[in-house]
Amino acid sequence: MSGLTLTPLQGVPKIRAGDDIAQITLDAAASSHVSLQSGDILVYAQKIISKAEGRLVALSTVTPSAEAIRLASVTEKDPRVIELVLSESKAVLRARPGVIIVEHNLGFVLANAGIDRSNVDGMDHALLLPLDPEASSRRIRADIAAKTSCDIGVMIIDSIGRAWRNGTVGTLIGSSGVPTLLDLRGKPDLFGRNLETTEVGWGDEMASAASLVMGQAAEGWPVVHVRGGPALRGEGAIHDLLRPKSKDLFR
Amino acid sequence: MSGLTLTPLQGVPKIRAGDDIAQITLDAAASSHVSLQSGDILVYAQKIISKAEGRLVALSTVTPSAEAIRLASVTEKDPRVIELVLSESKAVLRARPGVIIVEHNLGFVLANAGIDRSNVDGMDHALLLPLDPEASSRRIRADIAAKTSCDIGVMIIDSIGRAWRNGTVGTLIGSSGVPTLLDLRGKPDLFGRNLETTEVGWGDEMASAASLVMGQAAEGWPVVHVRGGPALRGEGAIHDLLRPKSKDLFR
Repeated sequence: MSGLTLTPLQGVPKIRAGDDIAQITLDAAASSHVSLQSGDILVYAQKIISKAEGRLVALSTVTPSAEAIRLASVTEKDPRVIELVLSESKAVLRARPGVIIVEHNLGFVLANAGIDRSNVDGMDHALLLPLDPEASSRRIRADIAAKTSCDIGVMIIDSIGRAWRNGTVGTLIGSSGVPTLLDLRGKPDLFGRNLETTEVGWGDEMASAASLVMGQAAEGWPVVHVRGGPALRGEGAIHDLLRPKSKDLFR
Repeated sequence: MSGLTLTPLQGVPKIRAGDDIAQITLDAAASSHVSLQSGDILVYAQKIISKAEGRLVALSTVTPSAEAIRLASVTEKDPRVIELVLSESKAVLRARPGVIIVEHNLGFVLANAGIDRSNVDGMDHALLLPLDPEASSRRIRADIAAKTSCDIGVMIIDSIGRAWRNGTVGTLIGSSGVPTLLDLRGKPDLFGRNLETTEVGWGDEMASAASLVMGQAAEGWPVVHVRGGPALRGEGAIHDLLRPKSKDLFR
């Protein structure tokens, strides 16, 4: 087992709708003296993928429904943001002053449907999650393969809160070419018994590792290069990391 | 911002009660050609700390209470293990066939009170969490400082399940000399606004990163060396990562 190295790529510019993420990645890798190899993984902050895919919505264009106005009053949030939260979600799990936790259309349980506020040219905007982060990951992987002949694993992550513990952690929302859930059933532990804990959230562990390197504030590095023994490759699906509502004791 | 490198130490032996974890770490670092420096972090799998501290209980010595027998029937588990789970816990949050989720005496919400089953000399045993993982971390940090004059951050982690998502992830249970929760309030985002997400579960992100490198099954590496830009140092407390019950919408 060799070690694991996570390197933030330097020189990623501010991303705008239509930007070519694969080309921007290759330019940033070159600036960072990182030579991509098949087997490496690239981890992307959700924000830049959403921006490249035009998921920025001007709040002035949003008309809140009656339900959004009611929930905005409960949560003390902007009714236009709540309207977007509802349109992005299957269900509202909790609404309290300052907090709205939903099941996103993509299956994630998270606050505000993953929507970030931002200011563009002096106007309030909301940035939604990518429409299909698995498809985004496949596309970036294919684009990089076409430009470099390297098969790179691609992961898209967001900072998401948890039940029971404070603070957000980097969490996988889509990927291509990496494992998501590792199934260790039948593997022996040190004593030769079968492991009691049989499933590992590998994709979320790697998302958290990359998040450490991205930084959170203005000085952020939204693309992280990963190389090393435990940078496993595989063909996992985000679906495998999402516990079905019927098996979830905490929603 | 430099990269982050996580290296599993080679040659950590099977740990027994009374073993000197600091000395074992230094021997393993030497075998692994890792030269410890102040500012580095060492991440330990809970199991080896528990074993060194004698937290292995022979199930033959445990007499289950009436309540343990009742819950064992609900959960289809060994009544003696349930007895230990109850003695390690403040409250049972959920009990279903195959599942018991508790609030541990140390404040963690987790399955089976973090107890692992193991077989020692042909007898069934249960391995409990360390009595005070923060104190264990301080002790290991001080022992290593005494032997090397290096101030190393120490983290103890366990593989813990989550609400809403499948799979366990490496999660902090105690530390010394590292941040736990990063408070980013007041820091501007890329647009100059204050960040909406203001707290990052840094200690849990690093725990997950180290878990990737430890491996889960028989070939595990229970001590991981961490070095690099984002390997921050600080004096966080595990308490800061634990959401108080009164502020938790999901228990």
